[in-house]
Amino acid sequence: MLSKEVRKQLISVVGEKWFLDSPNELYVYSYDATPLYQAMPDAVVIPGSVEELSAVLCIANEQRINIVPRGSGTNLCGGTVPLEGGIVLNINRLNKIKEIDQENLTATFGPGVITADLHKAVEAVGLFYPPDPGSMRISTMGGNVAECAGGMRGLKYGVTKDYIIGLEMVLPSGEVLKVGGKNAKDVAGYDLTKLLVGSEGTLAVVTEITAKLLPLPEAKQTMVAYYRSLTDAARTVQRVIADRIIPATMEFLDNGTMRVVEDFARIGLPLDMEAMLLIEQDGTEAQVERDMARIAEICRQERAAEVRMAQTSAEAAGLMAARRSALSALARMRPTTILEDATVPRSRLAEMVEQVNRIAKKYNVHICTFGHAGDGNLHPTCMTDERDKEEIHRVEQAFEEIFLAALKLGGTITGEHGVGVAKAKYLDLKVGTAGVELMKRIKQAFDPNGIMNPGKMFAKDTRRRVVVKSCACGHEHEANTEHHD
Amino acid sequence: MLSKEVRKQLISVVGEKWFLDSPNELYVYSYDATPLYQAMPDAVVIPGSVEELSAVLCIANEQRINIVPRGSGTNLCGGTVPLEGGIVLNINRLNKIKEIDQENLTATFGPGVITADLHKAVEAVGLFYPPDPGSMRISTMGGNVAECAGGMRGLKYGVTKDYIIGLEMVLPSGEVLKVGGKNAKDVAGYDLTKLLVGSEGTLAVVTEITAKLLPLPEAKQTMVAYYRSLTDAARTVQRVIADRIIPATMEFLDNGTMRVVEDFARIGLPLDMEAMLLIEQDGTEAQVERDMARIAEICRQERAAEVRMAQTSAEAAGLMAARRSALSALARMRPTTILEDATVPRSRLAEMVEQVNRIAKKYNVHICTFGHAGDGNLHPTCMTDERDKEEIHRVEQAFEEIFLAALKLGGTITGEHGVGVAKAKYLDLKVGTAGVELMKRIKQAFDPNGIMNPGKMFAKDTRRRVVVKSCACGHEHEANTEHHD
Repeated sequence: MLSKEVRKQLISVVGEKWFLDSPNELYVYSYDATPLYQAMPDAVVIPGSVEELSAVLCIANEQRINIVPRGSGTNLCGGTVPLEGGIVLNINRLNKIKEIDQENLTATFGPGVITADLHKAVEAVGLFYPPDPGSMRISTMGGNVAECAGGMRGLKYGVTKDYIIGLEMVLPSGEVLKVGGKNAKDVAGYDLTKLLVGSEGTLAVVTEITAKLLPLPEAKQTMVAYYRSLTDAARTVQRVIADRIIPATMEFLDNGTMRVVEDFARIGLPLDMEAMLLIEQDGTEAQVERDMARIAEICRQERAAEVRMAQTSAEAAGLMAARRSALSALARMRPTTILEDATVPRSRLAEMVEQVNRIAKKYNVHICTFGHAGDGNLHPTCMTDERDKEEIHRVEQAFEEIFLAALKLGGTITGEHGVGVAKAKYLDLKVGTAGVELMKRIKQAFDPNGIMNPGKMFAKDTRRRVVVKSCACGHEHEANTEHHD
Repeated sequence: MLSKEVRKQLISVVGEKWFLDSPNELYVYSYDATPLYQAMPDAVVIPGSVEELSAVLCIANEQRINIVPRGSGTNLCGGTVPLEGGIVLNINRLNKIKEIDQENLTATFGPGVITADLHKAVEAVGLFYPPDPGSMRISTMGGNVAECAGGMRGLKYGVTKDYIIGLEMVLPSGEVLKVGGKNAKDVAGYDLTKLLVGSEGTLAVVTEITAKLLPLPEAKQTMVAYYRSLTDAARTVQRVIADRIIPATMEFLDNGTMRVVEDFARIGLPLDMEAMLLIEQDGTEAQVERDMARIAEICRQERAAEVRMAQTSAEAAGLMAARRSALSALARMRPTTILEDATVPRSRLAEMVEQVNRIAKKYNVHICTFGHAGDGNLHPTCMTDERDKEEIHRVEQAFEEIFLAALKLGGTITGEHGVGVAKAKYLDLKVGTAGVELMKRIKQAFDPNGIMNPGKMFAKDTRRRVVVKSCACGHEHEANTEHHD
């Protein structure tokens, strides 16, 4: 609970209208897109300028009040749930696209800009901002920066951090910092810009973003290939890359996902198939045609039962929309949908899919898998019911085993969703205890009072059930850790 | 001076052969490629494994002995001069290319690998590591990582940090940390990999590097355009980008540089021209041809006096070699050559070149300018004589004014050479006092005892002559700062 005095101070900064603390309003900000996590904030503050935002942080820092920065809350790691109360700092009013600089190929905008709106604005002048997370119609760019959002074009174009070259941020102290800028090259000091991307609101609040843009590719083609065997589909992905072709998109859907998507979108997917690949290439017209012909050939060599090139852009858009509907379609099946994010080097994709299926069977849980095959970034998705404690327990065990399997294959615990609260207790498995301790010290360099999004990224209380002796990252990890801070 | 005991300990770790402390040997490590800076180390240690390197850091950290990590010492910011004595830690024995993974398109290697050797090794299997700093035949990849090396292909392909996706590092405490890996997507915690790139040996010592690779472009063409006016050349660069073409390389040489290069390389450059652009495009054959035809058209529209496509790959290589010889050619002219690195958003290129010429005239110093025009990354180069104190004073004043001019145009104090000791006193002009303080706290998170490359990046003693009230980054900076730590 905020004191009357602090409440008054905050209202005097942002105005009555942008300070929320009625129970109904607080409830709205008590959860995000992640299932299983919920906690009530003490207040929601929606500043209208960097000056207001800085003043809010000054007050919070002085009073040791927690700050949870939040855009649209579409993250999938519990990153914006106010676990320890405090102020949810909504950045949605900072939503201006300030400049699209066609000479330097950059865009500068507020963190409240919706990802898809940025896409539209830059594409209107023939430019291209590649990252396209699943939530792009709702997610804010501030959220994309906080979580280092990925998407379907990661294989060829990389992720959010590959495009963010300048930031304005407010430190917990209220100080405003500008780092990076429009320069194609800049090595003046540590790269704080890239450090902020993916920092999950635990270091500072971003108030302005400068992204580099590319020329919009002139042509694009979409293809779908259906397989009777998972391994054939996975091998196709590896063969295409080995052939030195980097498609813009290579998405994978297993039979379970195909069934649910077909039920939802009715586009005639062949449900007797084990898997499908959705492949897109962009570039010059000639190059796209050449690459797609060669990819189709490889699909057939790897025993695709059917390979179909989208004949119209409407058909292509339909296929991509079907893929994008996967999560919504799966979410209709049962009360709770847990979308995971285990990622492996792409050469280990087939092994990882097999592991997921084995583990689902072992724990008797219903997992469908789809994801960004070209990146080795899979989204095993579990349909369950959070009210059934016994089943949820099995689901948690299954996912824990999936993360460990990913690490054993040289992978990571999260490819694009972030650590947040959902993966905090697994972070040391990837980066080691020394890595976690170093990251905590870096957080302290930004946030000495620990007010920024507490409980995220770093686990307060870890009860790991699985005994881990060593993992693919080459480190020895403590066995049977029962509790560590 | 190291104590007898410490000397014995270090020798017991690496062996007599790899511990150097005779005056002649120390002298070799007292300077690097940067003029004007020199200081003697107390010892040079050359570990042969990560275990040895970790043991050396343990000893140094316990005894508070400074550590200056060093590869080939080709940096241009005094980054490897042991300003405050201590141990120069030579990483050249860690020089194995451990793996080129053709399925995941990654290479994993030791920091002692020479940049050009990595190029050769990956190109032999049809892959491509783009960053190509001027010193690539001598520089180590460890040095490239420490300085975030750039090069001629930055416009299209970015710089070192865009390719480094995994690191093994040893913290000053001796702890070994693995961060990142081969995964195309990985958001497990703060991105320590990117933070280390460009950290100039002030945080940790890198002992293994994983870089992502691209398919080697199948075709490449080189073109040269000569101009009677600097501004026409600069406008060509802007027009090409505005036309949504991103060439692999767009290099600029002014008349002064052309004269010196011609004298050195004898390739028939027309010395009555004010400037030349050297342009390279790569990609598929068809795309390269189309782009080059369009670029030639733009060159002519912007009043190039001559546009010439290299007819053979030997001719293309000759042109590129001439450009690469610029620094060596300039260095023959007078005893001391100071190569600077001011960088601006590329749309401000013409203004920046004009500023450089105006400032050179004002201080009556001889400056030639060449550089990576497509990146806005210029290398104004001064031919001088460090024994002439009065002239050197004017040179320093001129460069200070050049940095300030770059900042006023929205640029930065260093595009690719790093801060080191040479730019330390200007860092706050770019990132503000709050930025410098934050960076110091980040250093402390890695290196609480301050043993890592002290005196670099952060100025101990700044005597700035110029009064700065505000700069392009939007911050107010203190005026007449006489001394700050």
